[in-house]
Amino acid sequence: MTAPASRPDLFDRLVAESRPDWSAYVDHAFVRGMGDGTLPQACFRHYLVQDYLFLIHFARAYALAIYKGRDLREMRASLGGLKAILDMEMDLHVGLCAGWGLSAAELEQAPESKATMAYTRYVLETGLRGDLLDLHVALSPCVIGYAEIGRRLAGLPGALDDANPYRVWIAEYAGEPYQEVARAARENLDRLAADGMTEARFPRLLTVFRQACRLEADFWEMGMTLAG
Amino acid sequence: MTAPASRPDLFDRLVAESRPDWSAYVDHAFVRGMGDGTLPQACFRHYLVQDYLFLIHFARAYALAIYKGRDLREMRASLGGLKAILDMEMDLHVGLCAGWGLSAAELEQAPESKATMAYTRYVLETGLRGDLLDLHVALSPCVIGYAEIGRRLAGLPGALDDANPYRVWIAEYAGEPYQEVARAARENLDRLAADGMTEARFPRLLTVFRQACRLEADFWEMGMTLAG
Amino acid sequence: MTAPASRPDLFDRLVAESRPDWSAYVDHAFVRGMGDGTLPQACFRHYLVQDYLFLIHFARAYALAIYKGRDLREMRASLGGLKAILDMEMDLHVGLCAGWGLSAAELEQAPESKATMAYTRYVLETGLRGDLLDLHVALSPCVIGYAEIGRRLAGLPGALDDANPYRVWIAEYAGEPYQEVARAARENLDRLAADGMTEARFPRLLTVFRQACRLEADFWEMGMTLAG
Amino acid sequence: MTAPASRPDLFDRLVAESRPDWSAYVDHAFVRGMGDGTLPQACFRHYLVQDYLFLIHFARAYALAIYKGRDLREMRASLGGLKAILDMEMDLHVGLCAGWGLSAAELEQAPESKATMAYTRYVLETGLRGDLLDLHVALSPCVIGYAEIGRRLAGLPGALDDANPYRVWIAEYAGEPYQEVARAARENLDRLAADGMTEARFPRLLTVFRQACRLEADFWEMGMTLAG
Repeated sequence: MTAPASRPDLFDRLVAESRPDWSAYVDHAFVRGMGDGTLPQACFRHYLVQDYLFLIHFARAYALAIYKGRDLREMRASLGGLKAILDMEMDLHVGLCAGWGLSAAELEQAPESKATMAYTRYVLETGLRGDLLDLHVALSPCVIGYAEIGRRLAGLPGALDDANPYRVWIAEYAGEPYQEVARAARENLDRLAADGMTEARFPRLLTVFRQACRLEADFWEMGMTLAG
Repeated sequence: MTAPASRPDLFDRLVAESRPDWSAYVDHAFVRGMGDGTLPQACFRHYLVQDYLFLIHFARAYALAIYKGRDLREMRASLGGLKAILDMEMDLHVGLCAGWGLSAAELEQAPESKATMAYTRYVLETGLRGDLLDLHVALSPCVIGYAEIGRRLAGLPGALDDANPYRVWIAEYAGEPYQEVARAARENLDRLAADGMTEARFPRLLTVFRQACRLEADFWEMGMTLAG
Repeated sequence: MTAPASRPDLFDRLVAESRPDWSAYVDHAFVRGMGDGTLPQACFRHYLVQDYLFLIHFARAYALAIYKGRDLREMRASLGGLKAILDMEMDLHVGLCAGWGLSAAELEQAPESKATMAYTRYVLETGLRGDLLDLHVALSPCVIGYAEIGRRLAGLPGALDDANPYRVWIAEYAGEPYQEVARAARENLDRLAADGMTEARFPRLLTVFRQACRLEADFWEMGMTLAG
Repeated sequence: MTAPASRPDLFDRLVAESRPDWSAYVDHAFVRGMGDGTLPQACFRHYLVQDYLFLIHFARAYALAIYKGRDLREMRASLGGLKAILDMEMDLHVGLCAGWGLSAAELEQAPESKATMAYTRYVLETGLRGDLLDLHVALSPCVIGYAEIGRRLAGLPGALDDANPYRVWIAEYAGEPYQEVARAARENLDRLAADGMTEARFPRLLTVFRQACRLEADFWEMGMTLAG
């Protein structure tokens, strides 16, 4: 007797059909360099500054999700995400940056890099053009992908040792609180898909997912090359 | 041997589940009054002025449909509708109004009635909050409903006689060109539904459709009562 | 020597040029009936149910303001408003309704009245079509107007007596916490106007303000007539 | 007696304060290579394919401008632009591409490059977040910039000779019809600025303009490097 094969959730299905874009993102040299500590620190600093600007637009995307919410439950779920970013993550990020010698003033005055602009506007515009499911699929490589990356890196020998300057970043995304955020995002995708995804629609969602993976990879590349 | 029961299209299904809202709209006293010529002419004039303002927002809704189009084919289909309104219907409407003693200046300076505001903004906001199917369901009581009303009225004895001051209006919506517009709108709904409508989503679409029917009935009522 | 005449703020200027629409709103029979306790309780209950549905869309408008925010400061200001609604006012409202014999289930299942639809979608669509200033002008008759109404009613003899069944409502909006919310909204309007309002634009903002006042008056009227 | 110094229009002012971003765009190696005919033809073909995809989103931006139009005049002006793209430019472009050996099928199936995505979504999202002026400022480096580039290149010796494979492209944008499109776009910017631009707002518009120039330069670079 065999157990019924469990049906993959939407996120796993999107990942399965998005290689090699997914791999190019989660296995980027920037990621590997955080895992073994070899990433040049200037690259990480550049990334941190742009990630601060990214978070602002990410918060705008959650605000858009509240606006687009179809009932109070959906609105409150997105409000949870929005408060997590604006009331918590932004402060944590500013704190992390301070540890790397980056002042709040530097963060606020930094010009937005092309990779930051490209990724954030793509996500926002996808959400305005389509519906909530489009928006959450566009957000998922970031929200759920960072949890995957954190978990993988944390499993590498030495990744969390004091000697690795990136151990704080890795521990944050590998930690249970963030892993739980990612699980909730997976469930949310499945709930939205059960409600509004026909098979005919899947290829368009896959295109959105792949584009978002490519834009995430570009974001690492921007850090790696110190690009403006 | 029996022929396969033909599956009702989305519009028929929405109508079937929207009584009595649908009936209150298509059988409104304003409509009956056009059919037998008893509608006070001041009511029709009030309606004509507001319908001019309505058309402007209706054109905005088609522009929104172009913005939301997922490919060039969808965009061009909506552009057809937009050009029909701005390049043709508006002029026809101004001509019809002139025949009723309403100048272009009067139309342009008329304040928007509450019923006009309520209906148009509901349609537009529904399209921004949701996706193309939401938008087209919100538009359908108007686009397809007017063809139904025109066809019914044209079938009444005397409706198209010279004695009926509303024969031009009736003939326009009963005429083949407008009937074809309505058929194309039905097919478009079915195409969008085949692509993106799960059964779980139907109740929400039904709510949108019912609200739009109610707002259409209010629009007749506004004409009937000369409401501002 | 005379002190320089203080320049009226944008809200006062909008009010000054919106009579009689403003008066029809703030002096509506529903309002007077709350002041002297003569409002039929069924009317208040009907209003409470629709105000619950109104708050949901009002929260969506604040989410839209966050999305449209031009910097973190603007986004955080709007987030304050959004949290006030979803995390606090909704619960207060549910509590107030419970005191009037209305269960949470009744609130959630109530159909949206036409007046609620008309007002909320007008505000939201105005914000999407225009910019942040348009959105906040559309919101201001509600946000700031309720503080005016509360303050006026609280000044009437007997309005806050135990015998007046509407004393809790009056006290809430006359109270310092809500008055402070309204003051902040006034300042926000002035800040946005200093940044982006030319005189050429004022007439369009005035139109938005007047429409919103009319839609507020309709909201009272809906309560008064128990309209669906 | 001296003639009054003519006040620079908004576009000239934006250009004057956007160097070196403006120069990096209009003097890009891709542009110079078209002028003297040295641009590798594979680069031009790559550009043509992406420009086809770009035009689709550009049409969406004009549709958005119609939706955001504040009156019929503004809506009709934007409809003119939209029809120019969808009814004329797209066909011209397909014809131009055919001459370069690119079939319509190739154009339709081509994956969108990162530079195309980045530029188009930035423009669209800017228009949704802000108002019509924001949208038209974001569009102006393309609409008006191409006329500048065409005019400059046409003035170079040999640029329009049969020997230059890029003479058709240059002649199109240098030609009077396109120059007139650009003049109308300048006037439209000035009209919108007269209506809604305070000095306090100029720096934000400048940021939008600069970003759009950078994204245009990236678009040439994408052609030059055959980037995906």
